[in-house]
Order: sequence, then C-alpha cells, then structure tokens
Amino acid sequence: MTGMAAESAVALYDEFVKAGLLIPAGPLGAFGRGAVFEQVLDAFDALIVRRAKADGVESMTFPPVIDRQILERTGYLEGFPDLCGAIHSFVGNEREARAIPKRIADGEPWGDLLVQTDVVLNPAACYPFYPTCRGTVPAAGRQVTMLAWVYRQEPSLEPTRMRAFRVRELVRVGNPTDVLAWRDSWRDRGFELLTSLGLAATLEVAADPFFGRAGKMLAEGQLEQKLKFEVVIPILPDRPPTACCSFNYHQQKFGAAFDILLPNGDTAHTACLGFGLERTVMALFRTHGADPSQWPAPVRALLWP
Amino acid sequence: MTGMAAESAVALYDEFVKAGLLIPAGPLGAFGRGAVFEQVLDAFDALIVRRAKADGVESMTFPPVIDRQILERTGYLEGFPDLCGAIHSFVGNEREARAIPKRIADGEPWGDLLVQTDVVLNPAACYPFYPTCRGTVPAAGRQVTMLAWVYRQEPSLEPTRMRAFRVRELVRVGNPTDVLAWRDSWRDRGFELLTSLGLAATLEVAADPFFGRAGKMLAEGQLEQKLKFEVVIPILPDRPPTACCSFNYHQQKFGAAFDILLPNGDTAHTACLGFGLERTVMALFRTHGADPSQWPAPVRALLWP
Repeated sequence: MTGMAAESAVALYDEFVKAGLLIPAGPLGAFGRGAVFEQVLDAFDALIVRRAKADGVESMTFPPVIDRQILERTGYLEGFPDLCGAIHSFVGNEREARAIPKRIADGEPWGDLLVQTDVVLNPAACYPFYPTCRGTVPAAGRQVTMLAWVYRQEPSLEPTRMRAFRVRELVRVGNPTDVLAWRDSWRDRGFELLTSLGLAATLEVAADPFFGRAGKMLAEGQLEQKLKFEVVIPILPDRPPTACCSFNYHQQKFGAAFDILLPNGDTAHTACLGFGLERTVMALFRTHGADPSQWPAPVRALLWP
Repeated sequence: MTGMAAESAVALYDEFVKAGLLIPAGPLGAFGRGAVFEQVLDAFDALIVRRAKADGVESMTFPPVIDRQILERTGYLEGFPDLCGAIHSFVGNEREARAIPKRIADGEPWGDLLVQTDVVLNPAACYPFYPTCRGTVPAAGRQVTMLAWVYRQEPSLEPTRMRAFRVRELVRVGNPTDVLAWRDSWRDRGFELLTSLGLAATLEVAADPFFGRAGKMLAEGQLEQKLKFEVVIPILPDRPPTACCSFNYHQQKFGAAFDILLPNGDTAHTACLGFGLERTVMALFRTHGADPSQWPAPVRALLWP
C-alpha cells in the first residue's frame, strides 16, 4: 500500500469510527461493530438466507474454532501458513502457572509456556462441514448454508482487511455436473443480489493469496482453470475494488480429504460461495451514506422487506 | 465425574446428536449446532434483548478474538491460566514455512514453529468493552449489551461444558449504588425470565473456577462477599444442575485496569450478567422435548411472540 493509500485507508477507518459504525479495540483488524452496522449486517445476511432457502438448503452453525486436522488434511498449511491462527493453551501445574503472570509483569513474552491444542481458528466458514459428510451422500447431493466467524492472520490498516470477520457461505456437494451448474447459477445470483443493492459490483476470475513463490504457481493454475471467481466492489479510496463475495470450485479436494462418496462410488465434488458480510456492509455505507434510513427505497425494501 | 455420570453425559450428547440438535465435529466441546437448535437460540436471545432494550441499553458486537493485553491487565492468567486460548501464528520465510507440512506429514507437533500474536480468544463477552470506556463516563453511567462467542480450554464429554459457546451479556458501568441496584434488579429479572420459560431454575451464590490452591482462597472471598450469583438448571442426568446465567459484581476491577472514571473522579464500578445461550437452549430441550412445535403454549408465546 502506498503512503497515500495507507492514509486514505486510515481516514476511512476513522470515518467509520466517527459514525459509530466501528469501535476501536486495540489490535489491527479486530475492532468492534456498532449497533447500526450490525442491523445492516443482519438484514443483508437474512436477504441471502431468504434467497438460499428457496433451494431447500440445510442450515447449520459451527464455532469459530475447528478441528486442527481439517487444516492439516487439506493442505492449508502449505497454501496459507502465514494466515493460520492456532490455539495454544497452558497445561502445567500451579508452580509452572506462576511463571505466566511473572513474565507479564516483566513485560516478557509468555507464548513459549503454552502448548498447541487440537483446535485452530476457522479460516473459512465451510471447512468444518466437509468432515461431517464422510460416507456416501444422497444422489441429489447436499446443499447447506452457514454463517461463521473466520480468522486470517493479516494485520492491516485497511478496515476491509480484518483478522476476524463473518462469512455467510453456501455449499454444494454432489457430482461434477450438478456442482458446476450450481456454482454457475449462484455466480449469477450472487452478482445480481449485490448489484440489486445499488453496489458497483464487477465479476472477476480470481486466485487465492497463496504463500510464497510456490504459491504463485498454484494461483496461476487456479486462474487458468477458472476455479475461483470474485465479486469486487469499490470501498477503499485510491485502491482497487475489494472482494465481497467469492465462488470456489474445489473439484474433489474436500471429497478426497474426507472420504465423501457419491452413490456410484466416485469421490464427491464440492463448491462454495461466501459473502464477506462486513465488507459488503462497508460497501453499502460507502455507496449510500452513513444513515440507512436515508438509503434508496429499493435498497431498503430488499434489506427490510 | 463418576463413570455413571460420564456415561449419562455421553448418552445425552448422543441424544442431542440423534435429534439433529448438535453436529459432531471432532474435538471435545467444539461441535456444530443444527437448524432447530439455532432457531431456539436466536429466539431466546431475542427475548433477552427485548427485555434489555426497555432499559435503553446500547448494543455492540466484538469478534471472538480480543486484545491479549485485556487478559494481561485484568489478572486473567493468574485466575484462569488453564482456560486461556492464545492465538499463535507463523511469521517466517518460505524455507521455514516448508517445515510445517513436513512435520504434519511426519505426524509430529508443529506448534513450536509459531509465535504468539497480540490476540487471544475472548473468555467473556464483556471483556473487550471495558477498554472502550477509558476516560470519564456520563453521570448516569453506561448500559450495554453484546452477544459473543467465548472460549474456555476445558475439553469435556459433557455437552454443557463447551470450549466455544455464545453468551449474551448485559453490562453496567457507573457508581457503586447504581451498579449494585442494577445487578440486584437484573438478578431478579434474569431469574424470572428463565422460570417463565418453564425451567426449574434456582438462584445460588457462586464462585469462579479459579485455578489451583491459591484460587480456592479467591473463590472463598468471592463467595463471602456475594460477588457472583448463578441461576442453575438441571440438564445433565446424575449431575448437579448447570449454571445457565451468571451475575458478577466486579467492584472497581475493570475501572481500575482501564482507567474508567466517574464524573467526580472516582474509579467506576462495573457489573455484568451473562446468559449461556447454548446451555439454556439445552435446558429447554431437556425440559420440553426435542420438538419446539410441541412445547407449552406460554413458552412458545414468549420465544416466538
């Protein structure tokens, strides 16, 4: 980020804070959200769910922490070692425990007194769902939706680049034909949903932010095969538009990792789309102003029917 | 937990899973929630919020991760070192990153390749709020509410003892007279709210699960001064009733830690109450059965007005 772009990212954050939409809370990317921000977020999420429910989608909810093995089995630590948040905890006795407050009093790090647990922060809302599909799925496959807090270790001054944020995901499991048709249909529906809210959305072929030089090759393959699309919307001044919704076709990646089979014995395919709820809400405030009661009537009618 | 109690805790978990209320997800205490479980949870939460809104309470939302300094400044690591979940992440280069998948492939631990970050999992919904009050509060003090995912590192077979769960909190900041009157009033209102749902609730003086022998003394002081009350409800077979709501009077603890002042220059007092949303929902299912459409009409009328 250039100096000017960094300045305007900070200015936008300050503007959100001044309007009571965001609440400063110390570490970068871990701020609080005010009541009005949340009202819009809840309304936008409910709009997605109403559209998804028309398809007879199942709904489920997972905590912000998930089985560490999910990341281990899906190559997450190869693709994104820098983004992972692992949970460490203290397992010693009373004498050993006293070392922690002592370190804190001395202003010294205390992370080495902890050990890694069996859970990690969830980096993508759909991750904990796949292991629950182990075995043979019905012939029609499965369609589920979930809202989850996800975590990415990328401290930033940009209000849009959060470490903890909420994603509303829709997931499809099934044969490749059904899964691709679903992905294509939701790519259109997701794009239409965002433009119907008056947002200057653009659909793009995209790649994940894979780590390092080896990651560049992974990203090129992803672009070439058009496995990922994003809907981007202008939010930050002096910066390219921000991804607010992303569509991923995983092919057999999760099916193979968690032994998910089709009735004919083939490994199941999966795809998902995720709406970044905070980012979309920020786009709405940037586009229509800080006071939702003054937003255009058609936008209000969609959000608060 | 005795063998028999452990068996019945597992049986209850299995019963919840069989009814589709909970979804197994690997690590103890990190399971998913089904759609019907969430419908009841949302309805119960909305009921609390409707009651609280009558008081003109402010609403805010914080992520599941908070500033590590909040735990460091409030003595959390002295009282509950064993319950803390700290976030560690990877900060090395590409060569160093390759060690992680190698360790995973070899079935070896990889936590020592990470370093502690500036955030920790939030152990209590109200914690991130206190630092935002730094400075002088209005003469009438403040009343806020928030729902948050919280974390306690206590893996257990009991479905009621979760590692990640949601708490709806109400918080009061002000002078000691106002804060104590608020605590007493909400102790009655919170208890009444739970009994009005047909739950066999009991109000008890309580203590926090402080760590170790030194912790025993802290707990005794807390009991003696009646700083903590809990509403307990029978959920687990063969076990004492489970705390579903707790009321805490912190005196000046948070005011002093975060320089929160009254207009007269005194350090502000604080109190909070937290409803354990999942536990209360489990109590509702245990009390009224697995199908909310068959619950008593007065209970349904409160939850779905």
